[in-house]
Amino acid sequence: MSEPWREISRRKQDERKSRIPPEWRIQSASIPNNGSMLDVPRTCGLLTSRELSITESHSAVSLLAALVERKYTSLEVATAFCKRAAIAQQCCNCLTEVMFEDAMARAKWLDEEFARRGKPVGLLHGLPISLKDSFKAKGYDSTVGLAALAFKPAKENSTLVDILLEAGAVLYVKTNTPQAMMALDSHNNVFGRTLNPRNPHVTAGGSSGGEGALIAMRGSILGVGTDVGGSIRIPAMCNGVYGIKPSFSRIPFIGQESGGPPGMGGLGLKASAGPMATNLRDCELFLRVVSDSGPWERDPSVVFGEWRSQGTFPAKSLVGVLRSDGNTRPHPPVAKVLEETVQALKTSGVEVVEIDAMKSGFQKCNALANKFFTIEGGNNWLSLLESTKERLSPWLSTRVVGKRPMMRTETLLSLHAAKEQLEAEMLSIWRDENGRRLDAIICPVAPHVTPEVDRWGGMGYTSAFVMLDYPAGTLPIRDISPSDLSLGFSHSETPLNNKFDQGNRELWDGKGIDRKVYLESTLCVQVVVARLQERKLVGAMGVVEQALKKGGKKGDVAVASEKAAKL
Amino acid sequence: MSEPWREISRRKQDERKSRIPPEWRIQSASIPNNGSMLDVPRTCGLLTSRELSITESHSAVSLLAALVERKYTSLEVATAFCKRAAIAQQCCNCLTEVMFEDAMARAKWLDEEFARRGKPVGLLHGLPISLKDSFKAKGYDSTVGLAALAFKPAKENSTLVDILLEAGAVLYVKTNTPQAMMALDSHNNVFGRTLNPRNPHVTAGGSSGGEGALIAMRGSILGVGTDVGGSIRIPAMCNGVYGIKPSFSRIPFIGQESGGPPGMGGLGLKASAGPMATNLRDCELFLRVVSDSGPWERDPSVVFGEWRSQGTFPAKSLVGVLRSDGNTRPHPPVAKVLEETVQALKTSGVEVVEIDAMKSGFQKCNALANKFFTIEGGNNWLSLLESTKERLSPWLSTRVVGKRPMMRTETLLSLHAAKEQLEAEMLSIWRDENGRRLDAIICPVAPHVTPEVDRWGGMGYTSAFVMLDYPAGTLPIRDISPSDLSLGFSHSETPLNNKFDQGNRELWDGKGIDRKVYLESTLCVQVVVARLQERKLVGAMGVVEQALKKGGKKGDVAVASEKAAKL
Repeated sequence: MSEPWREISRRKQDERKSRIPPEWRIQSASIPNNGSMLDVPRTCGLLTSRELSITESHSAVSLLAALVERKYTSLEVATAFCKRAAIAQQCCNCLTEVMFEDAMARAKWLDEEFARRGKPVGLLHGLPISLKDSFKAKGYDSTVGLAALAFKPAKENSTLVDILLEAGAVLYVKTNTPQAMMALDSHNNVFGRTLNPRNPHVTAGGSSGGEGALIAMRGSILGVGTDVGGSIRIPAMCNGVYGIKPSFSRIPFIGQESGGPPGMGGLGLKASAGPMATNLRDCELFLRVVSDSGPWERDPSVVFGEWRSQGTFPAKSLVGVLRSDGNTRPHPPVAKVLEETVQALKTSGVEVVEIDAMKSGFQKCNALANKFFTIEGGNNWLSLLESTKERLSPWLSTRVVGKRPMMRTETLLSLHAAKEQLEAEMLSIWRDENGRRLDAIICPVAPHVTPEVDRWGGMGYTSAFVMLDYPAGTLPIRDISPSDLSLGFSHSETPLNNKFDQGNRELWDGKGIDRKVYLESTLCVQVVVARLQERKLVGAMGVVEQALKKGGKKGDVAVASEKAAKL
Repeated sequence: MSEPWREISRRKQDERKSRIPPEWRIQSASIPNNGSMLDVPRTCGLLTSRELSITESHSAVSLLAALVERKYTSLEVATAFCKRAAIAQQCCNCLTEVMFEDAMARAKWLDEEFARRGKPVGLLHGLPISLKDSFKAKGYDSTVGLAALAFKPAKENSTLVDILLEAGAVLYVKTNTPQAMMALDSHNNVFGRTLNPRNPHVTAGGSSGGEGALIAMRGSILGVGTDVGGSIRIPAMCNGVYGIKPSFSRIPFIGQESGGPPGMGGLGLKASAGPMATNLRDCELFLRVVSDSGPWERDPSVVFGEWRSQGTFPAKSLVGVLRSDGNTRPHPPVAKVLEETVQALKTSGVEVVEIDAMKSGFQKCNALANKFFTIEGGNNWLSLLESTKERLSPWLSTRVVGKRPMMRTETLLSLHAAKEQLEAEMLSIWRDENGRRLDAIICPVAPHVTPEVDRWGGMGYTSAFVMLDYPAGTLPIRDISPSDLSLGFSHSETPLNNKFDQGNRELWDGKGIDRKVYLESTLCVQVVVARLQERKLVGAMGVVEQALKKGGKKGDVAVASEKAAKL
């Protein structure tokens, strides 16, 4: 065969399909062609009302409590989420590996152990957890959208997967990514494109796009993504869910498929694993349970430190607002929701100070971070592509011209020198002009609203915090409103003289843009704290959320999850 | 002039000499030609009995208490240590920068502030602290033994120096290193060779050799060294003092002179700064005060975490003993003192288990760590050498042939991949065969006793813990005894088939070796804990020390400091 990837993709998709029981197929007529698919699980008739309740009326925290109280068995919880994930897959193509049979067997075992021991197996007893495809689960592929990696089942679990299993979690699905995780739109030739369940015209984001879509569909109550440029926070925004990128050395990352060569973590930017969920407490649950399992004993990169030693957001706090990265001016609704957040914080008594991206040096972060993505020249994943004659995905085909030579050591050295210098310079961002220490920073996740498919612009607002290794999370604030759509850039905001700002304006003001496509988008803010203080980040995100609720702004929050919960 | 370094060296040494007041000169007849110089401060007549008491009868902890109780003024403490450091310099050539005038002025200011505020300036109020030459102190050079770097006074302090000053410390000297800090014997062409004050025939070690000698002379009560291969632990052993290498990201390292190009910390092994002192509690003082100053707000590489969150050595503990690195068999007295330590631990109720370097993978660490020292090819410091036509120091001249090409990125990548793999493999060293977790490991600091000048063998026992980033400390146990000198390798210990073991045996059994030269050596053990648990390390070292005291072995401990303290 001239293009082996085609056959591989067909077999892989057949395998995936075959692992969904025929009785869990839904009528294609149940799936809207053009609009939100969030209602499908409720309207398609496949889920019992108890299954709807399990999957929609709970947080992970409350579901765990119900499991421990034996209100539900692990088996019925696993069944409910397997069914709902199957529905999500049929709606928005978000899964890669379907592990339902193993999940049921494990859930049964957990129920038996619970009965036998008289206590739950661990802190995540019976909780279904979905994983980005890059995590290895014994016996299953980690294809990360590359045909060459298909049908090479993992011999070992990633360390984080072992930790979750030991805590009693149930694995049942892995989720889709872009080709080699090299894009911000989850399309690849093996599994196809993951759709945004709220609106198939806009992107589901990436690279943890399958997670984002699945969680928005409530096909998962807690998912794990990875982020080296924004790959947790971007799909969290696109799908209106919560997502936290910890500092690199907090959550085990060892033993993942990356599509790159081994050793890159030592030279380039370091990717983090982190939670995605429909609410903040579930993200916290994940971070706490993993941190308190002693992950530093299992992954040499993880720093010593339990959850309680990961910082505290103080009662009297000082928050900085970074309204722009200095390279791209946010779309008017993005700026507006940030200002609403500032006002809500001030109303609730939190002092907020302005941060200037130009003065603080933040403006330089994006360009430097981008250089780190060119070290290896793409040789590894492009060779994998060639090996099955696979073509580039649409978005990548407009950006990648082919393998480049590996960066020279001299250049790499100067890059690290520049990074060290910028990291030091950026410490000043944590002080206001009076020398007071900031507790958190709020800023956009992206300079634009969730764009149409394959039009995600830059990652300047997210990759900077990977380079700086600051914990950062996406907090969904509210749906975009019809009136937001008529907002224009203010006259004082002249376009910046660079292609990023121009491209970003195109997404709002450009010819051929019908802003109505953005109507289902969730407006989010990003919350950021200093390095390795994940507990402080959760505290900060909680304070922001509370401030907005108190300020009445939370009234029109329409996070997918919350909508879904209103049965 | 054909060799500019000669003139630079002359001027630099003149400058150093000129900064020692003439009245602090001691008669050359006061200095033994051939034996221990430890008594000189007491016999030369320069120090008053009060100054002898200040410099000899205190730990840093008790001296601080005396300062706070106003038993001493900061000025008289500074004067006493300046004088004693001047004596040490005249005995063993351990200083580079002499900062006495500034030290006196600062001490006076501290006394005034204390009077004015009614409380000490900080937790280190009035404590003199010596610094390895690589630390930058505003207005002074950081020559690190390279003529090309002389007469280029620092414009800023290293971050750690700022932290120490803010805590109330008094800087008064910087201390000698090998040429470019590239050797384990502190000789360079600018300042000459630092002698071991206990015995000028054996090495003072390096690269923090000046610190080691100065502290052994009680010319410093607390010093700061750096360690990327053993450069704190080795001179600590050679001079019979305590030294701790923390994990890399614990103590600020930013803003030092390295002799290398910027950015190397991102590609190679990462050096740590750490304390050297005459007792364990003073090392703890340094680590605690620096950690609790919030250094992560000032050095982006430092991880978040106060002293109390850096681990705890448990009451019931399990200690592993690594008797050999698998490449070089320790000299018989080194093996003997390790066995004495094991027995003392057992007697005091600590369980000790054996670790096999071959099984655990430890044997591979040395070779891999060595490769990391070749990345840059020495281009930077060798260019600095060339720029003043400086020659290589004796030890380096037998090892360095000239600049090498910088390592290729492909090779560097494979090196980092190998490191990641070995780091993961080495996690198993922390479990015994029954799966129980080890709390600490004890092993030799080196496979040999303190050797003659320029004969330090390998750093396999120290560099491994830099590559693995485990905190590790040198604990002086006892002086070598005359009977130790007659010990031979046992018949069961056949030489290993490698040049390292052969070279190491030469130092003990070789022709031309008169073991009597080793008689003034201190036998030490190295104590190691898992990454980033410095508080646990101090706990472990304390337990080992206590066990030896209880076991009566401490009776013949003759740490230089303790000898000196017996006035």
